[in-house]
Amino acid sequence: VTVTTDIADRLATAVEAAHVLVGDAIGEDYTHDEALTVAGRRPAAVVRPGAAAEVAAVLRIANEAGVPVTARGSATGLSGACVPVEGGIVVSFERMNRVLEIDTENHVAVVEPGVTLQQLDEITAQHDLVYPVFPGEYSASIGGNVATNAGGMRAVKYGVTRHQVLGLEAVLASGETIRTGGKFVKATTGYDLTQLIIGSEGTLALVTEATLKLYPRLRHQATVLAPFPSLDPITHAIPRIVDSGIGPLILEYIDMMTMSATTAFVGLDLGIPETIREQALAYLVVMMENRHEDRLEEDVAQLADQLAELGAMDVYVLPAAAAGQLIDAREKSFWVAKANNADDIFDIVVPRAAIPEFMTKVTELASENASWIAGCGHAGDGNVHLSIFQSDPDVRAHVSKEMFRIGMALGGAISGEHGIGEAKKPYYLALEDPVKVDLMRRIKGAFDPNGILNPGTIFDSGDPA
Amino acid sequence: VTVTTDIADRLATAVEAAHVLVGDAIGEDYTHDEALTVAGRRPAAVVRPGAAAEVAAVLRIANEAGVPVTARGSATGLSGACVPVEGGIVVSFERMNRVLEIDTENHVAVVEPGVTLQQLDEITAQHDLVYPVFPGEYSASIGGNVATNAGGMRAVKYGVTRHQVLGLEAVLASGETIRTGGKFVKATTGYDLTQLIIGSEGTLALVTEATLKLYPRLRHQATVLAPFPSLDPITHAIPRIVDSGIGPLILEYIDMMTMSATTAFVGLDLGIPETIREQALAYLVVMMENRHEDRLEEDVAQLADQLAELGAMDVYVLPAAAAGQLIDAREKSFWVAKANNADDIFDIVVPRAAIPEFMTKVTELASENASWIAGCGHAGDGNVHLSIFQSDPDVRAHVSKEMFRIGMALGGAISGEHGIGEAKKPYYLALEDPVKVDLMRRIKGAFDPNGILNPGTIFDSGDPA
Repeated sequence: VTVTTDIADRLATAVEAAHVLVGDAIGEDYTHDEALTVAGRRPAAVVRPGAAAEVAAVLRIANEAGVPVTARGSATGLSGACVPVEGGIVVSFERMNRVLEIDTENHVAVVEPGVTLQQLDEITAQHDLVYPVFPGEYSASIGGNVATNAGGMRAVKYGVTRHQVLGLEAVLASGETIRTGGKFVKATTGYDLTQLIIGSEGTLALVTEATLKLYPRLRHQATVLAPFPSLDPITHAIPRIVDSGIGPLILEYIDMMTMSATTAFVGLDLGIPETIREQALAYLVVMMENRHEDRLEEDVAQLADQLAELGAMDVYVLPAAAAGQLIDAREKSFWVAKANNADDIFDIVVPRAAIPEFMTKVTELASENASWIAGCGHAGDGNVHLSIFQSDPDVRAHVSKEMFRIGMALGGAISGEHGIGEAKKPYYLALEDPVKVDLMRRIKGAFDPNGILNPGTIFDSGDPA
Repeated sequence: VTVTTDIADRLATAVEAAHVLVGDAIGEDYTHDEALTVAGRRPAAVVRPGAAAEVAAVLRIANEAGVPVTARGSATGLSGACVPVEGGIVVSFERMNRVLEIDTENHVAVVEPGVTLQQLDEITAQHDLVYPVFPGEYSASIGGNVATNAGGMRAVKYGVTRHQVLGLEAVLASGETIRTGGKFVKATTGYDLTQLIIGSEGTLALVTEATLKLYPRLRHQATVLAPFPSLDPITHAIPRIVDSGIGPLILEYIDMMTMSATTAFVGLDLGIPETIREQALAYLVVMMENRHEDRLEEDVAQLADQLAELGAMDVYVLPAAAAGQLIDAREKSFWVAKANNADDIFDIVVPRAAIPEFMTKVTELASENASWIAGCGHAGDGNVHLSIFQSDPDVRAHVSKEMFRIGMALGGAISGEHGIGEAKKPYYLALEDPVKVDLMRRIKGAFDPNGILNPGTIFDSGDPA
């Protein structure tokens, strides 16, 4: 499939000619996302619509001609879900970047898909409100967050993107535009199309507007760091911390190697004594927030006592600057992995109590295959971020597939927040129940009968190259 | 379509013969739910499966024969979504009522669909945990709650059923059984089938198991009642209470007539002076919970000050017994409406800041049509429960449709938590975007190509009678 001159001309009737890029005008940035294992590809055309009606016009043209369409936000994704199809059209949302409304009466924001998390955070801060999803990359766009159901460290308190999106405007492959949901948390009025589109990685519809839930921005934050002799007591501590009712904002574990690489990467000295550093195989990071400083201090003291009882080697309440650096560094763990030449990265999710068993089995698996796997994870929600070091692609594919199989056998799923995209499609197709895959294909057909939206992604057997 | 003797015989191969009821063995209870406007109908057979495999066997038989199937929980629904199809099969989940697991490490419950909210509440209480959705009817089943995405008063803090269901086991019309989600809050691993099935009112699949999120049960609760001169200042107070960060569990408004009828219904005297009762046209009820008694008291004091500033005529902190009675009475508002001979009830949802405009317009509409509409609502989430008194069915249909049109024009939806079922289908089909209805029909076809699951419901044009 290729975009002929004729279609490029037609696209220029849908979107201002200056925003239809072809040939050398298409910058290298448009050819890839951040996935380590999906090579970039050049699309035949990039269009930069300025409004939903232009998106609809582009899709009508593409659908009629059967040309593949890939939606693109900030392209910070890690699974290749916005790598273009050769000869296809990229719809880049960079110009649809307006915050349309901050509604302080209903506590919602209405935004275009190209709005970045940073942009939204700056505007909501002016109203003492917060959009609480921080997947670790502030340049990520809301449209991309919706497509991948982005998560991040704060999910243990606030949930993920899915829990914040109250409504969408979206364009179907046919060019028809629908509105779903609204400024309310409750509705049982037909099937929940909002939730179905979230996390569908651009395969069901192109999102042109999102209505997002906002929360009061709590003023006071504290971060506690606790070294442990191993991962096991950390995992046992998590449910007891949840039971305590302090309602942590962040509950992360970082293994020794990752802690060492991460702090070195950003030049951070946490002041942990050498003797402890030598014995600590894993660290727990707990961040809390409160609107009352005295309640926060009381909760920190309660947590410190509890952590000591639960086997922490020591408990450090980090100064604000060091805490900020540690969280930033943790958010950059993908870049640390990349800088350390990790061959691939994963974000499998398992029931949080199963993390130690999962890690024990995965470490054995890696060792049996002369590979190395290390990482950190959202201990509060079972989402484990791992880097694999194994340059042989066949061995790596074997280890990866077995790792996913171990996670799924423990009741987990292949991706907690990055998505399947193109990078994990072979594993997904090999391990998922074929009854579910067939059902998803029929749902895909209900939205996009000609299969023009992001072919080759998740379960689609089409070859995107 | 009728269930022939042959099919009844085949059903007895799927489910123990003692649990296949036909003819006079089918009690009157199986013929209806609690909807005021949907007449009961007799099914040809009622089956009471004891396990998912039996449900699957029943669906295989029904699908092959093209016989309609209606799933039934406790039948406390208010939209006729579990009223049987004449000649069809009712799958009643009363025997699948086991709590399979209370997992205190992952904070989840795994339950069969026939488990009631009361049953789950008693078991979780033993672990100091809570399943926080209380739609007001403790005899309701989890399966029914999932089918209607049940909400209730605590949604302003905890969200609705959709936000608590982490995974499902469900049987498709074909008899194939799938498992979705798991013991985790994060996943981007294919389309979210869990969320699609929730709220689909038995039209996509029959749920045979649900994995539910549990929370720490907070020990201390307080209830504040504030009379206001009208609804308008209550609505303006809501976002400011949310901004304050006290995180209310319940934020309800009750209009004067409903307060009077409700308290009379349960014989409750709240001790509000006559002079205030005469002037108060609306009441705000705020319930809070905390694990620390001192923090709760501090929050109550802060709220009382804030309410006085926001125009409350007075602020009453209710004694625990009276508070319990008031909340119980509010939960019984449907029965109050029924006892007062309401002709129909609605649970429209609008953006919460739009409640006064909605009520003003609806009151005008009712008055223009010699009808009377009164009610109360979940002020924190925009879900308004109204009773209409108008015995002429044509006038009532006109007023109802216009009321929904007003709510939708304000950005609302027809049902916040009861569902569309059969009762609201004509309004839904008249007012919903036909592009969305067509899309939902295609999704329905992807799950249930022969249309055997709950025909005649939501948007289905099939005649269930």
